[in-house]
Amino acid sequence: MSISALQKARYEYQPKVPAILTEKLDNIAIEFGKATESVADQADLKSLFKNTYGKPLATFKKGANPDVSKQLNVGIILSGGQAPGGHNVIAGLYDGVKKGNKNSKLYGFLGGPSGLIEGQYVEITDELMDAYRNTGGFDIIGSGRTKIETPEQYAASMETAKKMDLDAIVIIGGDDSNTNAALLAEKFVEAGAKTRVIGCPKTIDGDLKNEMIETSFGFDTACKTYSELIGNIERDANSAKKYWHFIKLMGRSASHIALECELQTQANYCLISEEVEAKKMTLRQITDDLCKIIAKRAETAGNFGVILIPEGLVEFIPEMKTLIAELNDKMALKADEFNKLVSFAEKKDWLKANLSAASYETFASLPESIAAQFLADRDPHGNVQVSRIDTEKLLAMMVEGRLAEMKKEGTYKGKFSSYCHFFGYEGRCAFPSNFDADYCYSLGFTAFLLIASGVTGYLSSVRNLTAPAAEWLAGGVPLTMMMNMEQRHGSKKPVIKKALVELDGEPFKKYAANRDKWAVNTDFLFPGAIQYYGPDAVCNATTKTLQLEHQK
Amino acid sequence: MSISALQKARYEYQPKVPAILTEKLDNIAIEFGKATESVADQADLKSLFKNTYGKPLATFKKGANPDVSKQLNVGIILSGGQAPGGHNVIAGLYDGVKKGNKNSKLYGFLGGPSGLIEGQYVEITDELMDAYRNTGGFDIIGSGRTKIETPEQYAASMETAKKMDLDAIVIIGGDDSNTNAALLAEKFVEAGAKTRVIGCPKTIDGDLKNEMIETSFGFDTACKTYSELIGNIERDANSAKKYWHFIKLMGRSASHIALECELQTQANYCLISEEVEAKKMTLRQITDDLCKIIAKRAETAGNFGVILIPEGLVEFIPEMKTLIAELNDKMALKADEFNKLVSFAEKKDWLKANLSAASYETFASLPESIAAQFLADRDPHGNVQVSRIDTEKLLAMMVEGRLAEMKKEGTYKGKFSSYCHFFGYEGRCAFPSNFDADYCYSLGFTAFLLIASGVTGYLSSVRNLTAPAAEWLAGGVPLTMMMNMEQRHGSKKPVIKKALVELDGEPFKKYAANRDKWAVNTDFLFPGAIQYYGPDAVCNATTKTLQLEHQK
Repeated sequence: MSISALQKARYEYQPKVPAILTEKLDNIAIEFGKATESVADQADLKSLFKNTYGKPLATFKKGANPDVSKQLNVGIILSGGQAPGGHNVIAGLYDGVKKGNKNSKLYGFLGGPSGLIEGQYVEITDELMDAYRNTGGFDIIGSGRTKIETPEQYAASMETAKKMDLDAIVIIGGDDSNTNAALLAEKFVEAGAKTRVIGCPKTIDGDLKNEMIETSFGFDTACKTYSELIGNIERDANSAKKYWHFIKLMGRSASHIALECELQTQANYCLISEEVEAKKMTLRQITDDLCKIIAKRAETAGNFGVILIPEGLVEFIPEMKTLIAELNDKMALKADEFNKLVSFAEKKDWLKANLSAASYETFASLPESIAAQFLADRDPHGNVQVSRIDTEKLLAMMVEGRLAEMKKEGTYKGKFSSYCHFFGYEGRCAFPSNFDADYCYSLGFTAFLLIASGVTGYLSSVRNLTAPAAEWLAGGVPLTMMMNMEQRHGSKKPVIKKALVELDGEPFKKYAANRDKWAVNTDFLFPGAIQYYGPDAVCNATTKTLQLEHQK
Repeated sequence: MSISALQKARYEYQPKVPAILTEKLDNIAIEFGKATESVADQADLKSLFKNTYGKPLATFKKGANPDVSKQLNVGIILSGGQAPGGHNVIAGLYDGVKKGNKNSKLYGFLGGPSGLIEGQYVEITDELMDAYRNTGGFDIIGSGRTKIETPEQYAASMETAKKMDLDAIVIIGGDDSNTNAALLAEKFVEAGAKTRVIGCPKTIDGDLKNEMIETSFGFDTACKTYSELIGNIERDANSAKKYWHFIKLMGRSASHIALECELQTQANYCLISEEVEAKKMTLRQITDDLCKIIAKRAETAGNFGVILIPEGLVEFIPEMKTLIAELNDKMALKADEFNKLVSFAEKKDWLKANLSAASYETFASLPESIAAQFLADRDPHGNVQVSRIDTEKLLAMMVEGRLAEMKKEGTYKGKFSSYCHFFGYEGRCAFPSNFDADYCYSLGFTAFLLIASGVTGYLSSVRNLTAPAAEWLAGGVPLTMMMNMEQRHGSKKPVIKKALVELDGEPFKKYAANRDKWAVNTDFLFPGAIQYYGPDAVCNATTKTLQLEHQK
């Protein structure tokens, strides 16, 4: 197989790691801190996680570790959407496992958690591993979205672990997958099985973070890739002075990606879903805000600009949230009836009869091509697929309509032409930035140390990330510490609390303090393509989010 | 104004240039070769370009050049769409002009050719220039698409040149803009004015090339940027194994960009407009070809893949070309009548009555949402805007429909889900690759040498581009050498012949020899982001097109 010049060069990259990870293995000891509590619902969680609740924080320090060279069988799972650096987590884990004992084995479960359920796996060898070091994607073993939920799935998973004589399973995933990891850890202990379960914080969305987890991996690379493209488009907009670009950015619920990209590129406006929800903004208000900026720029800077939109926005606009909830309800409840309708007009009539008046009004106010998306692209459960709604086009059309009115009123004198973009798949599998390559390798190696220290139900944790890698701190966080109980499909479930953008956090405050200026001026920043070589400031900088959240 | 870390670092970059350009200026002499002929229509062109036709090729060699330090006033124009490296052409020209005589002046015309017509310009100073070295975009002075065509526009342009006492004007543009440059050069000589006109070959589309112009600038950077994204998407597709990605790539007529990206990424299929036209392929045939590959991969590799589509495709499908021509004719001819129609159904009825039966059938066979685009997004002359037609969605929908039929027939057993992308604005303003930074700076400096040598109607030419920069050859090509006569808006006009993809050229042959394999296997290449630093193979490689066309 031929490979690109960059891929070949990246094979040679040696990830930077915390100083402690460069010690001899038998001189790296686990040190426990205080016992922990979950973020909420302590009693409920304590009763659900009888064996694994409330464990202490763990840190690795110099000290004797006589058991580290024990032979081990370890399995690894990539779960959920791709994030740059996944291969390096495996590489760090692999190198740790083999350094501990060259007869130890690492097995990769194929296609995500279903590989564990079905016992589908491959042994990771030097040759296989070396072909994936410092590369993007999850293609080494594939990923999947199966959740281990039913008693049968738990039993099958435990059966596989038993058959393979697994000492540990590492699950690389986001909030859901790590919730799953916590439950699996508990089940193994409950059953008296020896298999430990360790999680690794993955998601480009950046919403798996807390006091002990400074960032999830992949966020850095994905944001830098999107910011490269946004910067290029900004430069184009400022050169041609013809278009308003509406750019939707991936990130299921939280607006971390959009906010980070905004800080990296200083686009004219960035919608933040969390703010929209907090202020209970209507679609009309959002449209008006955008139109005000466009009208103002038309008089000063010109008829061009760039607007960033988080993927999950529509679900944070109260009237749209209600509409989606009603649509999901009604279309599911009367699925047979609804599915018989053919034309959009028929469907619209049906909705008029079935939705609340307010929701029908919201629906009817949408441009027809967008309204149709609410009805067409439903998931297997009949639910509206929010990620398939062209929010960027919706806003561009609403803005166009409103500007036409303003023109008549005499409050807008410009010329409006728009271009829409959606960036998501473009960034999830990029070659990991040096930061993600280093961070992921360290997370994987730390996961091995946690396994070798005999703990279970922990998330691998590498902290102090704004300092040089040598000063990073390696350790583990009990998964239950990050959990609370939430309503899911009608019943209370233990879940890892999603970290949304905090409106009193430093990243948002930085944006809020500058946005009026960035909106009207042309203060674009052009980050350019991710660099893996070159001056330190060019190839080793962390995200602005991380810098702002951890500035001293 | 704050700037990004990469922009700051790129200011320090010293473009590599042909060895001759590092000589003392008074030791760089112009050497003329044989007189030239236009590519066709010699007699017509000779009579149109009485003073500038048939000039000899020029090359710069060591030798006395006593006049090089004469004080000069030079103007520069950025014309047409952005291409990475435009700022470096200006930088090379600026450095040449100032090296020749520090009292010489370089003026930048604002907003493209209209800046010359209207006398809108700015003096380029050290401070202004230094803020734009090695950066993307055309924002230093802006660009525009105005053509200098009417007698009034020529007169105004010459008036500006006279007022500013210009010794030369450099026009950075594509085929149209350089045709304009040739005409302007001729007019100045005809009028006895001293102003010389020199062109520079710009366009990301890569269609301005010939024996003496190996590539237009910007093609390298744009293709590398698109290939980065395609590679990331390929890796995502191969990790998730869920989607077929349909990716449309900018490039008005020629398929050079799509072909180059295909060679860089080895996507499963790449449509080449020139081949579609040569084989007179119908939309149905194209759809069938794609479906065959998708069905085959469903049985072997899986339900995923990547397909590349050149932007201009629809105009190369004979039935669509006819449809578009008829639509343009009829909608213009009976504009009043047509513009009164409101609903799509009414418009369709009207077309049934007004188009030929064959064209109406083609129109009616299109998915409604795409058919509507043919009628909605027309340019100010009432013509269909081909670049606004979602060809990628058209193909995805046609494929989906055909696969559903094949499923019923039992010839397809897979699961089809598609994602559409269009990459264009993402790459036109990237930081120029080292290649484009070097090439552009050299083109600009060479343009100065041509001016200082007193010639007019030449295109700055830097050749031997697959060798290290020191071995590049600097010179000039008479613009008339690249021209022929073509039918434009009902009359024969002199134009620079567009270079389309040659089906017997090495780049296409390379693809043709591999495509069956790439279609069915998963032989993806992941080029990653453009690197400006690092190993030579990573940051200094030229395009595959250039390598294949000039391999020895």
